[in-house]
Amino acid sequence: MHVMSGIKSQHDGMGKASVKKFSKKSALVIDQEEYLREIQKGSRLHLAKAITFVESTVSDQQAIGQQLLKSLLSHTGNSIRIGITGVPGAGKSTFIEAFGMMLCDLGYRVAVLAIDPSSTLTGGSILGDKTRMEELARHPNAFIRPSPTAGTLGGVHKKSRETMLLCEAAGYDIILVETVGVGQSETIVRGMVDFFLLLALTGAGDELQGMKKGIMELADAIVVNKADGANEKLAKKTVAEYKQILHFLAPSSPYWNTPALAVSSLYKSGLDSVWETILIFKKEMIEQNAWQYRRKEQTVDWFNSMIVDRLYRDFFSSVEKKETMAQLESLVRDEKVTVSQAVEELFSSNSKQ
Amino acid sequence: MHVMSGIKSQHDGMGKASVKKFSKKSALVIDQEEYLREIQKGSRLHLAKAITFVESTVSDQQAIGQQLLKSLLSHTGNSIRIGITGVPGAGKSTFIEAFGMMLCDLGYRVAVLAIDPSSTLTGGSILGDKTRMEELARHPNAFIRPSPTAGTLGGVHKKSRETMLLCEAAGYDIILVETVGVGQSETIVRGMVDFFLLLALTGAGDELQGMKKGIMELADAIVVNKADGANEKLAKKTVAEYKQILHFLAPSSPYWNTPALAVSSLYKSGLDSVWETILIFKKEMIEQNAWQYRRKEQTVDWFNSMIVDRLYRDFFSSVEKKETMAQLESLVRDEKVTVSQAVEELFSSNSKQ
Repeated sequence: MHVMSGIKSQHDGMGKASVKKFSKKSALVIDQEEYLREIQKGSRLHLAKAITFVESTVSDQQAIGQQLLKSLLSHTGNSIRIGITGVPGAGKSTFIEAFGMMLCDLGYRVAVLAIDPSSTLTGGSILGDKTRMEELARHPNAFIRPSPTAGTLGGVHKKSRETMLLCEAAGYDIILVETVGVGQSETIVRGMVDFFLLLALTGAGDELQGMKKGIMELADAIVVNKADGANEKLAKKTVAEYKQILHFLAPSSPYWNTPALAVSSLYKSGLDSVWETILIFKKEMIEQNAWQYRRKEQTVDWFNSMIVDRLYRDFFSSVEKKETMAQLESLVRDEKVTVSQAVEELFSSNSKQ
Repeated sequence: MHVMSGIKSQHDGMGKASVKKFSKKSALVIDQEEYLREIQKGSRLHLAKAITFVESTVSDQQAIGQQLLKSLLSHTGNSIRIGITGVPGAGKSTFIEAFGMMLCDLGYRVAVLAIDPSSTLTGGSILGDKTRMEELARHPNAFIRPSPTAGTLGGVHKKSRETMLLCEAAGYDIILVETVGVGQSETIVRGMVDFFLLLALTGAGDELQGMKKGIMELADAIVVNKADGANEKLAKKTVAEYKQILHFLAPSSPYWNTPALAVSSLYKSGLDSVWETILIFKKEMIEQNAWQYRRKEQTVDWFNSMIVDRLYRDFFSSVEKKETMAQLESLVRDEKVTVSQAVEELFSSNSKQ
């Protein structure tokens, strides 16, 4: 499967004996010109390798990833970035497969930043469930990149944004970003994409009870999935319910009336309306200058959150600091010390080191 | 007015000549035993002074504030903490005055952490509009503390939480915390209080367009204000509309059905129902062990946000750093560098200093 080739072949051509000796230098032997050329020519292999460099925690590999990205930066930004969320069981991967297949068949090149559900167990990035998006993975116009959920900001890989840019440089027209639908992941993914799609199930009232607060107001469209068979009538009722609620909510994007639609990923019905909605959205946002404006703001927001993340990580890099923090947190929780005193204590223990 | 006495008399008893000489030491002459005794006896003067110490940016004054707070910590936590928000014009101060008067007349001691609308202009903490809560300010059971909006986290003073604790140690039964209703202030205040009240105006659909996203899901009650005169019928219709929307939203607190109520602050009608709602809420939350649990979690969350705030402040303490940041932000916005590169650059410029 081409999906994993980047990881598997990272040390291609190096014998076992040489791996140890050159392990730190192995990343430095790449031919950058070749990478830039091949990525832009659409080589999945080189794209996958470049993403692996960007995601790497080894600093010189990371540096190569950044260098490649910088050289490709002028070729990015030409895709439609679509985030897809929904409660577990809403059928996210089935929808992405059906929607992605339709787009590929229309001639678009589609990259999917997928969640790897097995990664927290294996520590790796291997698709545990081989049947996930199997058909789409074989389509010549598709590229699926599963990301480990480890090393993430609220369930989104820290480098997802840069992976997206690499896919754009490789000429993908549409990027589909899947979210785990827990924690802060929706907010973070909303901050990465142009269009945010909430996948819902029939029975809005019940489902909303389990939905993250404010999530509906992040969505640019609500798509009720599994509108097929005996469920079809109920799906239409759910769409009507969502429309009613949406009427009262603040819109996700300026001057946009968030629509509710019904689809069947199984019977591939309604998917064309979803795509049509996205194209109308893009047209309207560009007319209002909101498309590029939002992207620039998103980039700056990302910059700021990366700074906070880095400050936090640097500060808590030592075991002692983490232990002090745990002790202070417990004292604060039990109201033995004030928050201000605990903060002072935490920062003074830093200066002593 | 007793409200400001803490600030005005901070240097009482010191001639002009001595102010300069002892200015750094003046804060150190307080009799701590006297403060602890007088605050617990209900002296507004000592309470106001203690708050001023806690809010101070002068480190030895701040240390006194923290010392007082620490000694009083075991006397805190016995109030009902109520946050009040609403769009500008919803009548927050009118509502707080009417609601506070009713509570005071019932025999409760009520502290109000109010917003000082003039503070951003004057830099001080003087109530610009003298008529704001004038009646309540004169009530023997009330204590009003206006806070400057400067030095805030999203419109909430960084020390509001500690001010609240001091008021509790001084025996106030109910703390009303006003929010400016912009930026992150609702989320921050929701993280400080037991009960969060959203003050709304008639005409839900229209008003919601201007309301911050997700705000309704933070509220434990929605109170439609100005339900008087010609407006009364419309207010009832608005209450019904809110009830309908609330039916679809996730509740703010576990197992709580957020009610919508109509009040007239002008004619003092419906205020008793609001108070009754709060008492039922408290009873139910205590039965579920959710009351204390939420408070502990709030304290830990506050601790964490203070750490991030401090890290950010320390990092950007130099002018050079702020300038580097501004330059990098502009490069990031225009996609001249990647976010990762900008972060690297920002942190490497730090280590050079």
